[in-house]
Order: sequence, then C-alpha cells, then structure tokens
Amino acid sequence: MRCLMTIQYDGGAYHGWQVQKNAVTVQQTVQDALEALFGYRPAVTGCSRTDSGVHARKYCFHFDYGGTIPLASLPSAVNAHLPDDIAAVGCMAVEDDFHARYSVRSKQYVYEIFNGRVRDPFLRGRAYHVSAPLDAERMNLAAKEFIGTHDFSAFCAAGASTVDNTRTVFESKVERCGDCVRFTVSADGFLYNMVRIMAGTLLYVSQGKIEVGEIADIIASKQRSRAGFTAPACGLYLCDVKYDFEV
Amino acid sequence: MRCLMTIQYDGGAYHGWQVQKNAVTVQQTVQDALEALFGYRPAVTGCSRTDSGVHARKYCFHFDYGGTIPLASLPSAVNAHLPDDIAAVGCMAVEDDFHARYSVRSKQYVYEIFNGRVRDPFLRGRAYHVSAPLDAERMNLAAKEFIGTHDFSAFCAAGASTVDNTRTVFESKVERCGDCVRFTVSADGFLYNMVRIMAGTLLYVSQGKIEVGEIADIIASKQRSRAGFTAPACGLYLCDVKYDFEV
Repeated sequence: MRCLMTIQYDGGAYHGWQVQKNAVTVQQTVQDALEALFGYRPAVTGCSRTDSGVHARKYCFHFDYGGTIPLASLPSAVNAHLPDDIAAVGCMAVEDDFHARYSVRSKQYVYEIFNGRVRDPFLRGRAYHVSAPLDAERMNLAAKEFIGTHDFSAFCAAGASTVDNTRTVFESKVERCGDCVRFTVSADGFLYNMVRIMAGTLLYVSQGKIEVGEIADIIASKQRSRAGFTAPACGLYLCDVKYDFEV
Repeated sequence: MRCLMTIQYDGGAYHGWQVQKNAVTVQQTVQDALEALFGYRPAVTGCSRTDSGVHARKYCFHFDYGGTIPLASLPSAVNAHLPDDIAAVGCMAVEDDFHARYSVRSKQYVYEIFNGRVRDPFLRGRAYHVSAPLDAERMNLAAKEFIGTHDFSAFCAAGASTVDNTRTVFESKVERCGDCVRFTVSADGFLYNMVRIMAGTLLYVSQGKIEVGEIADIIASKQRSRAGFTAPACGLYLCDVKYDFEV
C-alpha cells in the first residue's frame, strides 16, 4: 500500500531533505525513524528538495508499506523515533501511482524577514534579520509582478539545468505584521533558489536598487544577473503542498 | 556611572542567569562580552535569578562604567561579542544607588503552553507541550484567584528559604490563541518556582484534579503539597521588569 505522510521540521540542523554523503538530512533521519519502527529501511520519496537550513511547516513524502500498524497510528509511532525538530503530523493511503513530487499541483512558500532594529534571539535561524526599515508596501507591489505564467530563468540559481523554466505563480504578496515582513508565494512549481532570489529581489526593491516597474523587464530578460541576491535559507519555509485531494 | 542594560535571551542553552561553577550561564556570557569590549571584567547585577532553560523577553542588569563608548552605542557594540541567543536591546544611565534587583517594582512572567495534538518542532524548548485539550476558560477562572496580596508559600519550591513569602499579584490570566494557551502573571516579586507551580496548578485545574474553588484554600494552607506540579522551565518567559522610571 502506498502511503503519504505529512511532516513538519525545523531545518536548522539539516542539510536539506535529500540524502547526502557525510551530511545529516531530513530524508535520512525520517528513514532512520521508519527503519527503527518497521525493522527494515523503506525508500521514501519527498515532494521537493529543500536547501540546507530551509524549514517546512508542511512537507509530504510517500513510501510503500505492508505492515500492520494502522495508518492513523503511524505518525505518533514514528514521532517516538524522530528527533524533536521533526514531527510526523498525518498519514493516509494513496493510489499506487501517486508520487509525492510529480503529483504536486501547487506549493506555497513563505519567506520570513525580521525587521526589528536589534536581532531577536528567538528568531535566530528562523527568519532573515534586516535592521533597516523595509518598505513592505512597495515590496508588495513588486511581488504582484511575479503573478502569472512566466519563464523564471532570471530567478533560478546560475548553473541549475532544467529543460523548461516556465512556471505559473498563483499568489505572491508581502505583508507586514509588527516587526515581521512576510513574503508568501504559491506556484505550480519552483526553480532552484527561486523563492530566495525573489525575496532578495524584493529587498532590493525596498532599498531602491530595483524599481517596481523593472520586475517585468527582469523576468523577460531571463538573466540571473538582473535579479536581486539570494536571500539566506534560514527565512524560507515550505508551508503548503497541494495535490488533487485534501492532505 | 551606573548603567542599566536591557537584554533578551533564549535560555535553552543556559543554566539560568546566575554564575555557576561548571555550567554556562547568561550572566557569565554577558560578562565575557563586556570584558571583550571593555578590556576588563565588570561586575554585573541582574534583576532576577532565572532557572535553567527559562527565557527572557526583557531582562535588566546594572553595572558601573567609566569608559568612553556612548551608552546609546553600547548595545550594538556588546551584541558583536554576544552569541546570537542573547541580544542587548538598550542601555541607559541610572542613579548611583539604583539596584537592578532591589529597585524592581514589578515583574511580568508568561508561561507558554502548546496545546496542539502533535508536537511543534518550532516550539521545542520554547513552550510546554500538552496534547490533551485544555480548558483555558476554567484555567483563567482559577488564575484570577491568585490576584491580591497573599502568603504564597504553597507556590514556593520546597526547601527554599525566604523570610517573608507574602507577595502581591497584580495581574493573572489565561488566554487561548489557537493551539497556544498562555498564562500571564505580574507581581511585585516571585518566590522560587512560583510561576511554574502556578502553571502546574492551572493545568491540574484543567484536568479536574483541582477545582477552581480550591485555589483560595490552597493558598491559605501554605502547603506546597496542596498545589500542582512544577511545570517545565522551557515554557517560562520573563517578559517585563518595571522600575520607578521607564526602561
């Protein structure tokens, strides 16, 4: 039976999702926990690669399971074997041809900026600290320019090789809540470092290094050098993953 | 010149404020930073002892300074030498007879409970996780019973020796915000473990182990054994310290 499990994790201690040699990753840690529970090491396939230090409020992966533990009990059983910076939240049966990555309809990311004058000890590794006051309204105007179907090559890490860099952005906005400035973006898919480069570009807009009116040109240029810097991983959260059914 | 410095800290990595042998404390870490900046090790006096793992949104200490760095620049200068789980927020000149502890008029503590079904990786070490649903309204009724001037011996860790256990509680309430249940209490002073024992008692009230109507009796009994358990340190935050002037 194919199972879809939902987890959340603080990525601060992990080198991203994907298993790597000589570095602790979330995938490997989840496999360790499932192996401790099942007595064998299952293959698990995630919904997305995430960078080192990136967080997930909702991350999905699939694996095949033939054991006797009821699916509703699996999360708490797995949690007993997971470190406390990862938590299994839910588990459900899915079709045999379901694929955690290829079946994704849309994903939502949030980039958190802490805009207080002095750093916040409780947000270290959880938000990018920018002490100079940000113009969230102007950033929001620029963020709206990302909405739609575009070739986002200008917002893809140099050297990344994908055949087609066209993605559809459904939602893109910047909101201020006190000292926090939050960039929220949903799309049918994301290129490598796309959200972090978008966030860096919006910060350049606030600083006057890029004008709101230039965003469309930057997209059209397909040139990475025209966009802003790659904002640090610590502010990035995968917040939602949508499939054809409710997860 | 006597100076009052305000800091905030995530206490997760520290054995409380007070300097100890063979354990890293906040006081020692702050002294290390000031020594790196001043070239000598100043004596610093804190507003309160805090337990191992307890956090502070606002903590004040005093020290005497005769150097040339303008006070307004001291926090950022000190921050360059502090680890990122401690942040200096402000610094001001005070009277020579000011004492960070003895001059306190009131302090406010918050005890954070995460009441979600599954643990939250982002709140580990930052809130006490209780998965069974809590009755915040009933806890609030019980919390109101703490308000007033009472001998709080029943809410003092056994073995603690203070001459007078009478304290005046100005504010005491429990509020729910989504999956978070927050107990806020202000008083002119607190006994050892007082807030954690109050929080444990309120949790017992939610669980029906103690009735709201018993709280006054428990206070009057002065018996520690009548109150609830000592809730874990990770949920406790010193949130405000008030003096005769604005800090």
